[in-house]
Amino acid sequence: MKQKQFGYLNLPANNKVEQTKKRSPNGTELRLLEFLWRIMQKPKLQLKLWDGTVVGSDEENVPKLVINSPKMLWRFLMNPNISFGDGYSAGEIDVEGDMLHFMEAVFSSRPSLHDSNWIQRYALNRPRLVRRNTLGGSRDNIHHHYDLGNEFYRLWLDEEMLYTCAYFPDPGMSLEAAQIAKMEHVCRKLRLTPGEQVVEAGCGWGALSLYMARRYGVSVKAFNVSREQMQWARERAKREGLANQVEFITDDYRNVSGAFDVFVSVGMLEHVGRENYAEMGHVIDRCLKDQGRGLVHSIGQLESRPMNGWIEKRIFPGAYPPTLSEITKLFEPWKLEVTDVENLRLHYAKTLEHWLARFETHAQQIAMTYDAAFARAWRLYLVGSLAHFNIGALQLYQVVFNRVSNNNLPWSRAHLYKGASE
Amino acid sequence: MKQKQFGYLNLPANNKVEQTKKRSPNGTELRLLEFLWRIMQKPKLQLKLWDGTVVGSDEENVPKLVINSPKMLWRFLMNPNISFGDGYSAGEIDVEGDMLHFMEAVFSSRPSLHDSNWIQRYALNRPRLVRRNTLGGSRDNIHHHYDLGNEFYRLWLDEEMLYTCAYFPDPGMSLEAAQIAKMEHVCRKLRLTPGEQVVEAGCGWGALSLYMARRYGVSVKAFNVSREQMQWARERAKREGLANQVEFITDDYRNVSGAFDVFVSVGMLEHVGRENYAEMGHVIDRCLKDQGRGLVHSIGQLESRPMNGWIEKRIFPGAYPPTLSEITKLFEPWKLEVTDVENLRLHYAKTLEHWLARFETHAQQIAMTYDAAFARAWRLYLVGSLAHFNIGALQLYQVVFNRVSNNNLPWSRAHLYKGASE
Repeated sequence: MKQKQFGYLNLPANNKVEQTKKRSPNGTELRLLEFLWRIMQKPKLQLKLWDGTVVGSDEENVPKLVINSPKMLWRFLMNPNISFGDGYSAGEIDVEGDMLHFMEAVFSSRPSLHDSNWIQRYALNRPRLVRRNTLGGSRDNIHHHYDLGNEFYRLWLDEEMLYTCAYFPDPGMSLEAAQIAKMEHVCRKLRLTPGEQVVEAGCGWGALSLYMARRYGVSVKAFNVSREQMQWARERAKREGLANQVEFITDDYRNVSGAFDVFVSVGMLEHVGRENYAEMGHVIDRCLKDQGRGLVHSIGQLESRPMNGWIEKRIFPGAYPPTLSEITKLFEPWKLEVTDVENLRLHYAKTLEHWLARFETHAQQIAMTYDAAFARAWRLYLVGSLAHFNIGALQLYQVVFNRVSNNNLPWSRAHLYKGASE
Repeated sequence: MKQKQFGYLNLPANNKVEQTKKRSPNGTELRLLEFLWRIMQKPKLQLKLWDGTVVGSDEENVPKLVINSPKMLWRFLMNPNISFGDGYSAGEIDVEGDMLHFMEAVFSSRPSLHDSNWIQRYALNRPRLVRRNTLGGSRDNIHHHYDLGNEFYRLWLDEEMLYTCAYFPDPGMSLEAAQIAKMEHVCRKLRLTPGEQVVEAGCGWGALSLYMARRYGVSVKAFNVSREQMQWARERAKREGLANQVEFITDDYRNVSGAFDVFVSVGMLEHVGRENYAEMGHVIDRCLKDQGRGLVHSIGQLESRPMNGWIEKRIFPGAYPPTLSEITKLFEPWKLEVTDVENLRLHYAKTLEHWLARFETHAQQIAMTYDAAFARAWRLYLVGSLAHFNIGALQLYQVVFNRVSNNNLPWSRAHLYKGASE
């Protein structure tokens, strides 16, 4: 299974590369590297080659991208985005210095679509086919990521197994507390009352569904196409005596039927695919009662550009982070009004810091259970994501919406902060 | 001046109409009226003609639109939107029953662009030329509305002369208290600190600029093209000893220069015109420091359709309420991220209830100072706006934004609600 999922494992192993290591880089290679660094708007970093040659920033003590072989160099020049990730995973590319600073420098220097010319767009953001989220495609894409094995995620997620942005009203709180705070924040935004019917689209390991049922006395139908996650969720529901209140349905959210008071979706929209937003709006409209309301929680970005190519290819096939205007457009045709948007960008950075720290604690174990390339790929993905949120290349939006026919709205958002210390 | 601004005053006076009042409506007229009512999706209201004939809903006790002459009927059939407003103003159309319910029934039954066919779109939403907001056009459009005379607005606005949505965290509070609460809410969202430089675009009579300076110790440059308003604002600043902290500039916000910590605009975006949003984003980007942030407060809607034709023609030339996706798109190209959106729709309904009640108290006086048609037009505008907010045809968005390079963000929005009773 690993071999099939992680194609970069087929890259040449380090020992094969050794043979070509001695040759010096030629003039063309150096000129192309210099060119690449220039069109990246000269970030504060250097490119270091196998023989010690350095290209890039004149400054000292900047992080270095180390390319270990001519073959890797050419792969990198042809497609920097994908081959950086694959090369790093395979150990043919390394980073010297602070990896987070390195990633922040790379992503900060990326020109916006708005400002860039076609050479920059092509070289840095190679167009590629994204796997489509048809009903079957979604299933495959989700299995790729979420069925890696619950044991893997248990090593570095919190106890509730929440694989989405936590909420840190106090930045010093633990990840466990911040994930509970997130669920409570979402429930307050939804203004749940006992006996209401809730549909959750993309419920992960089921923590939020169970929390809503336990703490707010609602009934939940929760959808997810990941079999492993749903098995875990069902067992937990039984164990906690909530199986009669929460129904976990292994199916696409698009097959939802019935009428609900509340629609909620945390961390699914990123996987829906832009081409399906109109359909998603239609599904929400179809299943929401007249007094209906809901919340969508999603990673977002400022420009509608494809997901980082390597992450899309290796980690999250089919993923696309929408812009806020794309999210709000999802609701507008259905007479659903947005009542509240909160951007939790720095909360996702904080969440990723926690995940990364836990991941590093278990990195050896993960490399042994899976392999070194797998462990390196996941480190890169976590550090890269952290860099994206730190520099504002990604956002996290919580969007609350409401049928316009529903005038039963609170007069302020103060109820979200009752008992808040800050 | 009145004659020039209010073209409907040239409509035939009631006494001329009397002569044609006796003739019965013919079959064509009745069929066309019936057709109009049908394409409006059969709202719960009736159309009553000069001879007592009634067309429309079968239900009893529904509000009635009364058309007082054949000439008015034909005008109404040709362009229901504009001629309803003009006819009502001139007293050739009346409403029997609750006027607010009547307006809510009319606007609720209006098909969305999404669902409607071309006949509906044409008949109910006649395309017309909107006056453009070029630098000169904006000035004319703003003068049309805001230079009516400060005395007129003093009759029904609050003491601070705020002609934008108030904030009612307690729906029972007075309009005066709610306008102060709005300014405080805006200041908290902006996280103003003493000594900061603020630019306000479209400052009305200057209340917010003065509040920010007085309560938060910031320096403000405030822009507005309405001469009468600016004269009032400058006099108030002098009287209150704030003239050295607040500079009122009679100019278009697009001519702003300098570098500011904060950009704020309350109730101006509706007048900017969709074609100028890109330019507005550029202006904000140009004048905002690296750690900059801001707030835009604007009426909005769910579908990008033109302003109600009559209001655009007679009350607010050049006005267009943006969708939330249009607002967020204004920021996205400039690496400005939206951090918070709050929809205050029902707060605007509440504000309008207060304005309307005060307006009615002075209706006689207004009719005498201006004339009856002017007073009727303004009543129609206030009731119609209230209906729009009640049924969700209009929203009120407060959008807070931030340069993505600015990570100095609060960890929660609890600071907005400190000392809140709810």
